[in-house]
Amino acid sequence: MSSPFSFKLQHSHGLARAGVFTTAHGEVKTPIFMPVATQASVKALSPDEVTALGAQIVLSNAYHLYLQPGVQQVHELGGLHQFMGWPKPILTDSGGFQAFSMGSLRKIDDSGIRFRSHLDGSEHRFNPQLATENQQGLGADIIMCLDQCIAHGVSKREVKVAMERTHNWALECYQVFNESAGPESQALFGIVQGGAFPDLREESAQVITGIPFQGYAIGGLAVGESKEQMYEITAQVAEHLPQDKPRYLMGVGSPEDLVEGVARGVDMFDCVLPTRVARNGALFTPEGRVDITKRRFSQVNRPVDQDCDCYTCRNFTAAYLWHLFRAKELLALRLASIHNLRFVVRLMERMREAIINGSFDSFRGEFNDTYRPTNAVARQEHKDRWLESRSA
Amino acid sequence: MSSPFSFKLQHSHGLARAGVFTTAHGEVKTPIFMPVATQASVKALSPDEVTALGAQIVLSNAYHLYLQPGVQQVHELGGLHQFMGWPKPILTDSGGFQAFSMGSLRKIDDSGIRFRSHLDGSEHRFNPQLATENQQGLGADIIMCLDQCIAHGVSKREVKVAMERTHNWALECYQVFNESAGPESQALFGIVQGGAFPDLREESAQVITGIPFQGYAIGGLAVGESKEQMYEITAQVAEHLPQDKPRYLMGVGSPEDLVEGVARGVDMFDCVLPTRVARNGALFTPEGRVDITKRRFSQVNRPVDQDCDCYTCRNFTAAYLWHLFRAKELLALRLASIHNLRFVVRLMERMREAIINGSFDSFRGEFNDTYRPTNAVARQEHKDRWLESRSA
Repeated sequence: MSSPFSFKLQHSHGLARAGVFTTAHGEVKTPIFMPVATQASVKALSPDEVTALGAQIVLSNAYHLYLQPGVQQVHELGGLHQFMGWPKPILTDSGGFQAFSMGSLRKIDDSGIRFRSHLDGSEHRFNPQLATENQQGLGADIIMCLDQCIAHGVSKREVKVAMERTHNWALECYQVFNESAGPESQALFGIVQGGAFPDLREESAQVITGIPFQGYAIGGLAVGESKEQMYEITAQVAEHLPQDKPRYLMGVGSPEDLVEGVARGVDMFDCVLPTRVARNGALFTPEGRVDITKRRFSQVNRPVDQDCDCYTCRNFTAAYLWHLFRAKELLALRLASIHNLRFVVRLMERMREAIINGSFDSFRGEFNDTYRPTNAVARQEHKDRWLESRSA
Repeated sequence: MSSPFSFKLQHSHGLARAGVFTTAHGEVKTPIFMPVATQASVKALSPDEVTALGAQIVLSNAYHLYLQPGVQQVHELGGLHQFMGWPKPILTDSGGFQAFSMGSLRKIDDSGIRFRSHLDGSEHRFNPQLATENQQGLGADIIMCLDQCIAHGVSKREVKVAMERTHNWALECYQVFNESAGPESQALFGIVQGGAFPDLREESAQVITGIPFQGYAIGGLAVGESKEQMYEITAQVAEHLPQDKPRYLMGVGSPEDLVEGVARGVDMFDCVLPTRVARNGALFTPEGRVDITKRRFSQVNRPVDQDCDCYTCRNFTAAYLWHLFRAKELLALRLASIHNLRFVVRLMERMREAIINGSFDSFRGEFNDTYRPTNAVARQEHKDRWLESRSA
């Protein structure tokens, strides 16, 4: 293939890996966290800010862009990079997950997904060919196969059907991709499914890695299973993925999960969590998340995280952030998003450094000793607040 | 007085004036537009962006800051400049107008204003002494007398009562101000009232300029009178204001009003209009306001205003702004606010240059030939949309 895409594994420490991949829009050093620009904008941030906080690549969503402003529209305006003013690498998700989870019709069979737009109820269809062509039209550097992600807790039979469908679609996407002009500037990643069933995961990893994609993703996690299950399946799938291709754990991005994912050999992550919880006032610190809207911050005349080098922490006090959230000022959402993204991007930078230095194990140990993951109760509270603010 | 505040009139062209005033936080070249940071934040913008778009001074509101986070709170956190990360000059309004227009109780008599917080219904009181002390506690460079601004259309008797009260309060504010430590770092401006009655305006101008304030404001305009009336009263009052002090037309800031205000001898302006209409998608161009949410912008692959040097126009197309507004992305509000503020700040810069060059008359003529003010219908539509979005 004539794609400019290539991956080089540079160092490893245990299962943790440091590498670099090259795209038509530049290099990306792994392990990497990709901020999410669902609708061609990382919520509340300008491209300059996303660059300044150290992001090397962003993820955008083909479902949303297909509906608004439309693939053809973005294509005619010069492609996604030019449209959103982001000259660095972009990865697009196929949109299958969103079509199935956000649309109101949502019929899925072997031929694809029929769904209604969450915006205007109009009816649409995705199948492997259309999903691939959509992403080719948008022009991201890395595009994803259409897959069927299934909720946690359904029967093994259903998971198996979705997995086999995902395999068939993967092959179809691969064929469409290679028969088009796509490969010259894009890379296509395959996605392993199989729910929480080790035997299905193994089967899926074997089938998907049997297709020579330029990278491999672990899909269908962080959908309701326990963290322990997620870590186990990640480790199990990673074991079956080739060493010489990047590995991408989809939809995962809490600080503790990033560390544990890297420890199990994952190179790439994306998640809306850092920006979504930021907009609710939950800010990452080395000790865990804090809720900046609590009155105890009203008098704190120093940054939220004194060790942080982000724009927010270098320029504003916790007391000012508290005020901005209380006063419902838009700047609050931005400053909080910058901080949380910088926190996870810097975490990835430090892990890469530790892998290269051979000190990843002790880094991981220290991180886990210090960082207290948000417990399930607080997570649910944040989720409720988010759902509430969405329905408002 | 030992205040560092001074004003120097540098040039004039007809009645239009170019000058400079000096504060404890630096110089401000006039004529000037002051972006409004009601709650210690210019809505949607960071201090860096406000600086980058050329603003030299911002206005903040003592009513809002008194209620949230509180004057004492801001004072203890180092004062308003440090709190909001804005090292340049700040002017605070006394908050009397907001106490009377936003509070739900709103009792006013010669001793002051009683009001209920629009946030939690708690009862509060402003009088000349408290209003002055609040602003001293916040630490702005320029603070305003407590005044009574009255709606357009009320009887002359009522306007006269409010005016005379304003005069008494002005004297009281002056006395409180001069008996305190304030003058060492702050300047106090008086406010002329008198509604749309020329004889009252003349009387008010004489009484207020009889008190040696460091600057004089024209209050009580842009409250419902016609533009012609506003221009006439502005001209009439300005005639009675001393040449050697800055003149400030409060709450005025549409592009055409800025030009006409400068033409009548005004040096300073503030208004939420540029940022408020921006958040509804109304963007200034040399030909007038456009509504970026209209579909005709969806394919416009160039900046909204090709002549504009703002961050938004240098980096993003009208089509992308259209998309961001359609997709309800937060970045839309910011990019639109940056553009509109830069538009008015640049308009002031160009007027200053024209005054210095002796070409203000032709500048004004060309501007008025090209710029089509938003008509009353469109203005009402924007107001409705704003009210709607507030109640949502």
